[in-house]
Amino acid sequence: MTRWEPNASGRLQRAALELYSERGYDQTTVAEIAKRAGLTERTYFRYFADKREVLFYGSDQLQERLVAGIASAPDGLSPLGVVGAALEAAAAPFEEAGDFPRRRQAIIAANPELRERELIKLAALAAALAGTLRERGVADPAASLAAEAGIAVFKIAFQRWVDEAGGSGKETLAQLVRQSLAELKTVASG
Amino acid sequence: MTRWEPNASGRLQRAALELYSERGYDQTTVAEIAKRAGLTERTYFRYFADKREVLFYGSDQLQERLVAGIASAPDGLSPLGVVGAALEAAAAPFEEAGDFPRRRQAIIAANPELRERELIKLAALAAALAGTLRERGVADPAASLAAEAGIAVFKIAFQRWVDEAGGSGKETLAQLVRQSLAELKTVASG
Repeated sequence: MTRWEPNASGRLQRAALELYSERGYDQTTVAEIAKRAGLTERTYFRYFADKREVLFYGSDQLQERLVAGIASAPDGLSPLGVVGAALEAAAAPFEEAGDFPRRRQAIIAANPELRERELIKLAALAAALAGTLRERGVADPAASLAAEAGIAVFKIAFQRWVDEAGGSGKETLAQLVRQSLAELKTVASG
Repeated sequence: MTRWEPNASGRLQRAALELYSERGYDQTTVAEIAKRAGLTERTYFRYFADKREVLFYGSDQLQERLVAGIASAPDGLSPLGVVGAALEAAAAPFEEAGDFPRRRQAIIAANPELRERELIKLAALAAALAGTLRERGVADPAASLAAEAGIAVFKIAFQRWVDEAGGSGKETLAQLVRQSLAELKTVASG
């Protein structure tokens, strides 16, 4: 009954992105996504808990990359420096994702339910980063502050990256993360 | 039909807090809240859009105080300094709210639906602060970064304030905001 389907998750994500773009999120059902992907609704729910989660599949991977980046960051960096290094390293794969992240962000921006889910994912990400910083010996509130500030930096850098889409020679997400981090230091000083 | 009820909103808030504490959020209906407050369900919905909003009545007032604080902050402060001054000023009324904020926070922490709503309120707050900073002539991304970092500081200071509840001689929320802001500068430096 639980037949293995090659790259079912990726097919479902692409199908959802297409349908949400074409018809809108509200007008699309899970059954339609599964059909477009050539799979069953049952298979969909093996991968994603609901209609929203299919757009947030990457957040687990991002969290893993960030946690690994923090755990392996060199000594001698400030707590926010550690988070910044991890964010920069985690930003690289976005450059190879084609227009997927930008199309996905346009769908999320247009729907309050999806924006809610995104905020929850970002809060979970901040909590995971703070936990990993504490494991590195950073005490609270420094750990929570560096994690929350880091996520704020990422959110703003990501939005800039999405907004600047299209042209070649544009800044990479990693560069925008570095710039936003430097900018945060500037707005905090004085 | 729309008879004026003295302090209906305050009565509904108190009734909701009592019932959510006694029975849990999920086990309480709007009809029960209205009954406890000596009002009708219809009156409830004149003040609050749903079962969650009754706990977030204060967020509009907080936003007004923060926006006014930013608009009237003295010149010469850094963008985050402006936000910090507004946060400190807006923190004072929390000291006079008795155990309401802490009981409210315990209810929110116990319920994912309420935590979601809180994240949305905080995101809206950050957007309002960024907008007010831009009106003061702070450009983006500095305005967004200072606003998001400020909200992160407030969130963490508020959690510390809630956790430290009870004892006399404890720090005020305004003091914790100031400390967290200083701590953010420390984690960002170096």
